[in-house]
Amino acid sequence: MGASSPLYAAIDLGSNSFHMLVARSCHGQVQTLAKVKRKVRLAAGLGDDYQLSLEAMERGWACLSLFAERLDGIPAAQVRVVATATLRYAKNAEQFLEQGQRILGCPIEVISGEEEAALIYQGVAHTSGQSGRRLVVDIGGASTELVIGTDFAHHELRSLEMGCVTFQQRYFPDGQLGQPQFDAAIKAASTRLAGLKDRYLALGWSHCVGASGSVQAVQEVQLARGEDELVTLPRLRQTLAATVACGQLERLAMAGLADERKPVFAAGLAILIAIFETLEVGTMEASGGALREGVIYGLLPDRDKDVRGRTLAALEARFSLDLEQGRRVATLAEALAPGSLGERERALLQAAARLHELGLAVGFKEAANHGAYLLGHLDLPGFCQGSRRDLVALIAHQDGPLAVADHLLLPLAVLRLAIRLCAARRAPPPLQLTVKSTLLTLSLPANWLDSRPLLTDLLAEEAAHLHNSGLRLILS
Amino acid sequence: MGASSPLYAAIDLGSNSFHMLVARSCHGQVQTLAKVKRKVRLAAGLGDDYQLSLEAMERGWACLSLFAERLDGIPAAQVRVVATATLRYAKNAEQFLEQGQRILGCPIEVISGEEEAALIYQGVAHTSGQSGRRLVVDIGGASTELVIGTDFAHHELRSLEMGCVTFQQRYFPDGQLGQPQFDAAIKAASTRLAGLKDRYLALGWSHCVGASGSVQAVQEVQLARGEDELVTLPRLRQTLAATVACGQLERLAMAGLADERKPVFAAGLAILIAIFETLEVGTMEASGGALREGVIYGLLPDRDKDVRGRTLAALEARFSLDLEQGRRVATLAEALAPGSLGERERALLQAAARLHELGLAVGFKEAANHGAYLLGHLDLPGFCQGSRRDLVALIAHQDGPLAVADHLLLPLAVLRLAIRLCAARRAPPPLQLTVKSTLLTLSLPANWLDSRPLLTDLLAEEAAHLHNSGLRLILS
Repeated sequence: MGASSPLYAAIDLGSNSFHMLVARSCHGQVQTLAKVKRKVRLAAGLGDDYQLSLEAMERGWACLSLFAERLDGIPAAQVRVVATATLRYAKNAEQFLEQGQRILGCPIEVISGEEEAALIYQGVAHTSGQSGRRLVVDIGGASTELVIGTDFAHHELRSLEMGCVTFQQRYFPDGQLGQPQFDAAIKAASTRLAGLKDRYLALGWSHCVGASGSVQAVQEVQLARGEDELVTLPRLRQTLAATVACGQLERLAMAGLADERKPVFAAGLAILIAIFETLEVGTMEASGGALREGVIYGLLPDRDKDVRGRTLAALEARFSLDLEQGRRVATLAEALAPGSLGERERALLQAAARLHELGLAVGFKEAANHGAYLLGHLDLPGFCQGSRRDLVALIAHQDGPLAVADHLLLPLAVLRLAIRLCAARRAPPPLQLTVKSTLLTLSLPANWLDSRPLLTDLLAEEAAHLHNSGLRLILS
Repeated sequence: MGASSPLYAAIDLGSNSFHMLVARSCHGQVQTLAKVKRKVRLAAGLGDDYQLSLEAMERGWACLSLFAERLDGIPAAQVRVVATATLRYAKNAEQFLEQGQRILGCPIEVISGEEEAALIYQGVAHTSGQSGRRLVVDIGGASTELVIGTDFAHHELRSLEMGCVTFQQRYFPDGQLGQPQFDAAIKAASTRLAGLKDRYLALGWSHCVGASGSVQAVQEVQLARGEDELVTLPRLRQTLAATVACGQLERLAMAGLADERKPVFAAGLAILIAIFETLEVGTMEASGGALREGVIYGLLPDRDKDVRGRTLAALEARFSLDLEQGRRVATLAEALAPGSLGERERALLQAAARLHELGLAVGFKEAANHGAYLLGHLDLPGFCQGSRRDLVALIAHQDGPLAVADHLLLPLAVLRLAIRLCAARRAPPPLQLTVKSTLLTLSLPANWLDSRPLLTDLLAEEAAHLHNSGLRLILS
């Protein structure tokens, strides 16, 4: 890394908020250094005549002055400023842009709905854990993007003229949060969605990701109710009922709902419900990245498209892991893994093997816990929530009792055997593990253990731990 | 780092335990990879005729076979095996060594008491935080080393023939833990110490460090009683009373006292009390390193003797910190620091400034907490317990309320101002901070803030935080 590594900045002039993200590249990973965000609510200044009010422009310019302070010194080629729906629609956008560009000292690109959708998709693809076909939904202040894609390629892009700020003004203008207002907003959103419904349902997807403040807000309300992070239609309807029960914006209060989100919460919720109903969405998870991340990743050179592989390699480098030891354990774990382990578990096992010494970067004492702490908090592009949880569990339980969920027991047993068999930091001779129900038989070369009393001790200890988890280890 | 960095191994054949430490050098820091320890109690096999029993030898050889497994593959130049008091005293040591060297495949050095003392001193010097003159005490199984030194140079070395295993056998042979037994053991230890008393008291020291299991055990008992980690004579006497109250080894039980320490606890306690009484020790703190660490550091090339500087530089490299930003904040903090700040606070402020972005290595969200977690658990050679605590507090409170102890309030205020003034990742023009009681006046160039609305916001927020802590910030 040496001294300062080059800085990158992405600025997103959204219809609800303006955001700036300053980052640097650290061993190929994006490391966020600063975020500045202001709720400018530009879309609130867009009249029915599509003229942006001077007041709204002034709120925007004031925010750009803040950003300008931080842009100074970052090379122009490493900065990208994009503006979305409100400036796309406003007939007098030019007036805002001229002054805005003067303030920022760099060009502002008003991007099309399709380009916005494509960048959002890249932001999700670079930070999300799922592979396979996905539906990405981003509800902005004045537009909503819906994209279907696989890995890094989008197949279908749509940007609809509906957003949480514009819908709030149109359908909840006086702050009444009654069922009639919601019905009208949901109906209007459904009408806009009708045009893409057949095409999207025909393409299909295996999972759905929501990439906006509206989805996060709904998720936080759910979590405060004691539910998990998955957004579903019944949960959305429960949140709608609670909102209607408040009756009015000024009385809107709900555990988990931040004050600054309140003004646009109802409209975001209505649009989300319409999307779930129209596109028959089962569950949606929230994404760690969206437009800004798409812009930043687009600025960085040489993006390797194997997100998970890039994450593992970056962590190995950033935390100075012993690469040979990680590969040694990974290779052995792969060789020992029984045929019954699915692809997902094998991939997890490989990741855990390569990262099993991560906690040593913090300290030898309690190293497994340190590793779990790091993996619990690090950005892990390529690992979804569930994979992260499982990876943390494997790393945390590499020593001591195997206190993990049933589906992790066998991968963990294999990982722990591989770690112990490589404890001398040399690859052992070819070994075989056969698993029959709860019986694990490890075949070792004849007499090989005789000259390895320490390993013999370790394997005996391990057999005792496995026994406590209902597994039996036999050496043969 | 690349692939595997070279491994180093230190083996210490002590009179109570045999230890192996496997480490690698990671950006100039020693990173522990494995520890293997067996309570061999070699000294228990040393008769009054100074003949080591075959039984004891066999316990030793069995342990060496365990170590040999891990030594295989580590270059001979990176391994050092030292043996201490018991093998120094045993008349038939040669018999043990011949077979032992055959098992290990490398030479075993029986080191003199002085060399042992010198290595212990180096182990303490490389891992301890205090500078200035120190007394280092290490109570082994069959010998006790006492060293006076300053930084990395020892001035006086002594090794006395008394240890926790040999004294246990001599003064507590039948497991009786009565006051008479303690009196006899303390008297015997005092007699041995009498010869160095005048010389040591004349040399003097500013702080005392204990580097052995006996000191750690006493400390753990104190902590379990709710006291802090400093060992003092009144606390030792309280522990003695509690031990005598148990009456017998088989009934010895005390919160914080591990089973494996029990057999030699009384003897270690008696020797420690004699040292406190004879040398008029006020307080003793436990060291993070001793003989093994001294051996490992001796094996590593190019040891930089500025321990704290080495630690800071290693952390900057290991966690890929932005060096320029760290130096920028450190330089500004030094310039802003008022004359009233003592040398200790200035040094802490510099360390905190250089490491303030450490938590970004884990994640942007909650970065200050991540930094505090890392600094709370990392090996920090050059930082004593108190300095570590203060450093953690400064890093944890770089944002939000200034919830720190009074002595840290001013250093923290300076750190936070420096961080905010460098938030654009450029050095600000020359600034001045004057502190009069609770009034902080920051002098800025005329009109400089006018074009910096974001910084203006940050300073206004900061003024509010300072106000809540009883400080007033004025910009002039």
